Amino acid sequence: MSTIETNRSWTHFRVDRRNHRYCHVTFDHPPINTITATTVAELSDLVGLIEQDRDLNVVVFDSANRGFYLAHYDLENDPCRTEALGVGPTGLSAWIDVLVRLARAPVVSIASIRGRARGAGSEFVLACDLRFASRENTLLGQWEVGVGVVPGGGPMARLSRLVGRGRALEILLVADDLDGPRAEQYGYVNRLIAEDQLDAEVEAIASRLARFDHDAIARTKSYVDQVTLPDNSELGPPWNDFLELFRRPAQQAQSARLRELGLNTDGEFERSLGGRLVESLPFDEIIETLARTQEGRTAS
Amino acid sequence: MSTIETNRSWTHFRVDRRNHRYCHVTFDHPPINTITATTVAELSDLVGLIEQDRDLNVVVFDSANRGFYLAHYDLENDPCRTEALGVGPTGLSAWIDVLVRLARAPVVSIASIRGRARGAGSEFVLACDLRFASRENTLLGQWEVGVGVVPGGGPMARLSRLVGRGRALEILLVADDLDGPRAEQYGYVNRLIAEDQLDAEVEAIASRLARFDHDAIARTKSYVDQVTLPDNSELGPPWNDFLELFRRPAQQAQSARLRELGLNTDGEFERSLGGRLVESLPFDEIIETLARTQEGRTAS
Amino acid sequence: MSTIETNRSWTHFRVDRRNHRYCHVTFDHPPINTITATTVAELSDLVGLIEQDRDLNVVVFDSANRGFYLAHYDLENDPCRTEALGVGPTGLSAWIDVLVRLARAPVVSIASIRGRARGAGSEFVLACDLRFASRENTLLGQWEVGVGVVPGGGPMARLSRLVGRGRALEILLVADDLDGPRAEQYGYVNRLIAEDQLDAEVEAIASRLARFDHDAIARTKSYVDQVTLPDNSELGPPWNDFLELFRRPAQQAQSARLRELGLNTDGEFERSLGGRLVESLPFDEIIETLARTQEGRTAS
Repeated sequence: MSTIETNRSWTHFRVDRRNHRYCHVTFDHPPINTITATTVAELSDLVGLIEQDRDLNVVVFDSANRGFYLAHYDLENDPCRTEALGVGPTGLSAWIDVLVRLARAPVVSIASIRGRARGAGSEFVLACDLRFASRENTLLGQWEVGVGVVPGGGPMARLSRLVGRGRALEILLVADDLDGPRAEQYGYVNRLIAEDQLDAEVEAIASRLARFDHDAIARTKSYVDQVTLPDNSELGPPWNDFLELFRRPAQQAQSARLRELGLNTDGEFERSLGGRLVESLPFDEIIETLARTQEGRTAS
Repeated sequence: MSTIETNRSWTHFRVDRRNHRYCHVTFDHPPINTITATTVAELSDLVGLIEQDRDLNVVVFDSANRGFYLAHYDLENDPCRTEALGVGPTGLSAWIDVLVRLARAPVVSIASIRGRARGAGSEFVLACDLRFASRENTLLGQWEVGVGVVPGGGPMARLSRLVGRGRALEILLVADDLDGPRAEQYGYVNRLIAEDQLDAEVEAIASRLARFDHDAIARTKSYVDQVTLPDNSELGPPWNDFLELFRRPAQQAQSARLRELGLNTDGEFERSLGGRLVESLPFDEIIETLARTQEGRTAS
Repeated sequence: MSTIETNRSWTHFRVDRRNHRYCHVTFDHPPINTITATTVAELSDLVGLIEQDRDLNVVVFDSANRGFYLAHYDLENDPCRTEALGVGPTGLSAWIDVLVRLARAPVVSIASIRGRARGAGSEFVLACDLRFASRENTLLGQWEVGVGVVPGGGPMARLSRLVGRGRALEILLVADDLDGPRAEQYGYVNRLIAEDQLDAEVEAIASRLARFDHDAIARTKSYVDQVTLPDNSELGPPWNDFLELFRRPAQQAQSARLRELGLNTDGEFERSLGGRLVESLPFDEIIETLARTQEGRTAS
């Protein structure tokens, strides 16, 4: 008997139980699939159902919005308040808890990526087991350092193990977007699939996994988990850093400028966020830099 | 004085001592280079000789069969019974013991890969130090999950460290064949070499290694071993899982269907095993899936 | 207030403080940018200044010599004697100490690579956080095993984690040069940039990093450090192996032959060192190998 009922309603995604072994989830939270406390609460419930579902082999996560897989966290338009979410069953704060439980679930999770997945969106795909991405239409990134905070949902732990020190530091510190080819080259995703074949190929993989023996999948995955997953103790401190740095007045001011520039809305700013986030950086810094450049020119 | 005598006879491979520092081994076990208890026993002896040979710098393993490097384990046509092999000098069961000792030997082992290496064949190449593969003619894979068992010879430990979590999970859980270009992209092999240059380039590498100082090689390798090799304690439990799952009636029935389809024989089924293994999956599952699909269609 | 004063003079590199957050260092030690005790002592001072500079976000290291980024260590033309350098603040010997402190500094270090970086030159770029390399004009390698010693500055620890066991063993044991495309494929560098765009692109990355919040960078990097950097205890023993093997009469004789062939001078030998180092291997070995080959031919 399946425990994930398809007739339960969700607000930030749709759930389609394709067969007793295979569940398909489509993010659909207009306008740009931001993640809010509601998304986290619903994902927490969904992962709880996945954990208890002894029939389930595979869950695919895709997006109804071709431009945005999961834009990033939206702390502003967040009616039920992220901090009120508290901690989940692992004892970690709710967002990290969702990602930890998804990664450890005895089920193959597949991110089928079209469009942008930055910040918490990237953290979500990094917590999935397999990542397949559109060759022509993918932008991934961890933009947090560019807005003065530490990424809170585990990408230091996950990217370091997945792509190695040099490329992880580039993704995290330069904080720019990676397009599909670079994401594939770096190992950020498993591999690219042509945009018009992505759905069919992911469907074929999921259908294949749905036919395999559940215990063989669950046990094999658990051995990979032992080698590749971070200990929970790695994940708490960065979250606290995120909260501490985000509360600084300078970051609050930068957040206000980001909103003025178009953050959380469907437009050119969000589409080019990796490059354009510099427009939100403190103005005095720009002045100072220009002044020094000018000095340099005068001196030479 | 060399301890690997070239005049000893072996049944599943040939040994050519090219010079006192360089030994060449060619798998030759018709029709498709399956691995049986005999192969394991002979490899265990060979690795013992390699471990004691203070002159030896490098061992190359290639195949006399251009279509099959090492097909996979053959539990059926196995006159001296795998389980009777017991444990090796490491205290691990014989097959794992061979792989662990080869990886730790103070000698550079090179897999020069043409054709198919699946299951235990893939486990063997993963235990070699360097893997060079034919660009046009390579298929690698861990098919075990597709036939309802956990891979027993250590690929969760080795692939997780070699290619990272996402790609390791794909190889192990989707359980399909990877061709040369994908194996290279994922880091499953060091790199591809054009089919008609593979022998010459591997020969040049081996000859170069044969001229280097033995201690410099052995000590440098041992430092890499410390960082990259799994602890032996990781390797025992999956082997026990393999045996437990394999003995289930459903897996015995699937094995019988695999044999009917052409497993262990030189033919189209073995050539396309990654894709065609689904034909051996339980029929009632197919019926059930079709029924549910039908329901879905009727409902919509 | 910056602690790295641009008016201090250095002999093996130039330092340009481009702004209070961004420092540019150019190696300039003719004829081929070898590393000597002087380089190590100066780098140790520079890293000390970097560690204390609370303003600094990013340091770029490039080379004034387009053919040689950092050739390798030069033990011969070394007026102030490497061994006299003793240990640094970490308690590790001076060269390893410099690399460990650079990697742990709360600053993003970028190697902008043109030309050759072998041996200690490769060890330096591996200790940098990000490595960008000229597509057309890069040669990287750890040549030490080819001259009978263990690499002393940590590449077993760093490459094993960066590129995985198989490719690390190939780089370290085959000890040949990797050109740009192979270095990128293996993950030895982050990625390649066309020769004529390298400076502009690295400048854009550094300028971007210079505008970001220092704490966000420092804390995020420290979490990656925790996962990806080797423990100091891994780094001491290979250095002792290097010294022990290097002092052997056979290695001293090989060093003399290397000097006769053109080591440490700007010429064809240094340009093709990865391939040509075999010319310095012991002559009796060659004779022996030829004799055995001859035997083989006569026997067949």
